[in-house]
Amino acid sequence: MARNPERRTALLDAAIEVLAEEGARGLTFRAVDARAGVPTGTSSNYFTDRDQLLSQVGDRIFVRLTPEPGSLDTAMRPEPSRQLVVELMRRLARRMAAERTCYLGLFELRLEATRRPELRTQLTKVLRADLDHNVRLHVESGMPGDADTVRLLYFSLTGLLFDHFTVPGLHDDRDLDELIETVVSRIVPEA
Amino acid sequence: MARNPERRTALLDAAIEVLAEEGARGLTFRAVDARAGVPTGTSSNYFTDRDQLLSQVGDRIFVRLTPEPGSLDTAMRPEPSRQLVVELMRRLARRMAAERTCYLGLFELRLEATRRPELRTQLTKVLRADLDHNVRLHVESGMPGDADTVRLLYFSLTGLLFDHFTVPGLHDDRDLDELIETVVSRIVPEA
Repeated sequence: MARNPERRTALLDAAIEVLAEEGARGLTFRAVDARAGVPTGTSSNYFTDRDQLLSQVGDRIFVRLTPEPGSLDTAMRPEPSRQLVVELMRRLARRMAAERTCYLGLFELRLEATRRPELRTQLTKVLRADLDHNVRLHVESGMPGDADTVRLLYFSLTGLLFDHFTVPGLHDDRDLDELIETVVSRIVPEA
Repeated sequence: MARNPERRTALLDAAIEVLAEEGARGLTFRAVDARAGVPTGTSSNYFTDRDQLLSQVGDRIFVRLTPEPGSLDTAMRPEPSRQLVVELMRRLARRMAAERTCYLGLFELRLEATRRPELRTQLTKVLRADLDHNVRLHVESGMPGDADTVRLLYFSLTGLLFDHFTVPGLHDDRDLDELIETVVSRIVPEA
């Protein structure tokens, strides 16, 4: 296996582009090589098979969607409150919009996981680590609500953002920031 | 264009199977003919092009996911209450599980809609009609909560069911009925 880490990351980022544009079925070594602008055969030196490629794409998506630890510290500096949760969710939505390709690629990957048990196990693991992390962060920082509050925010934001990215006209009487405020203020109790 | 309505429906149902198993990219006239067990070329007598096929698949998915009007009348016979909303949402989840292929096919179609403006317009229209219908039903039957309550239920159930179908182990400390109860009781006010 080839070991250049920058090259591997570039291949994974190219794979995410392919995933979002062509769907999981279009994600072949050949398509990744073409998208990354490297000679045909390069990807096969970095990944043993398509399952390994898909699994590493999943990990890479989470790396890109997770904010830098430092940036979150700053964002959480104000007193814990419902309004701060609104701000953090708006921030999350902006991050997903900036990484739209990753966010849509994750949905492609999750649908592909219904057909691939190995990928399903892998995605379950990273999604759970992410959810557990968010529950801990919320509770330990003294935000109003409990673990189920976070779970409910997670479910609602998934539905809301999936609409926003796939059928943006569905809630066109409201802008995204307004919808997020509605969702948060109904789910998160007052401090 | 061929006009046998049963044949058209059978082709659309075959297309939904292809969509859920192969993804939108795998949805070709040839794949639909093969899946429906009809001679190659049949689909092209029923649909002018792939856009028309995708659009009619979208309509067919909604027909299959929508409960028979009579069955809903019976389900809504008890006094309006939060607990009745819990029961209705559990019923909805069971329906989606029974039509798992349709439900997953709809997600495939929504991702494909990010690449096809015509399909996006079509799906926005049917999703909005569905959401408006659910808001009217909720409010007119005197269920606790308002239009935003329904919107929030819709967002949360989307996130919850997508987890249930793609990464069922993610919330394995709770069964689906319990999760639905948690979601509804946090979103719907007491009567």
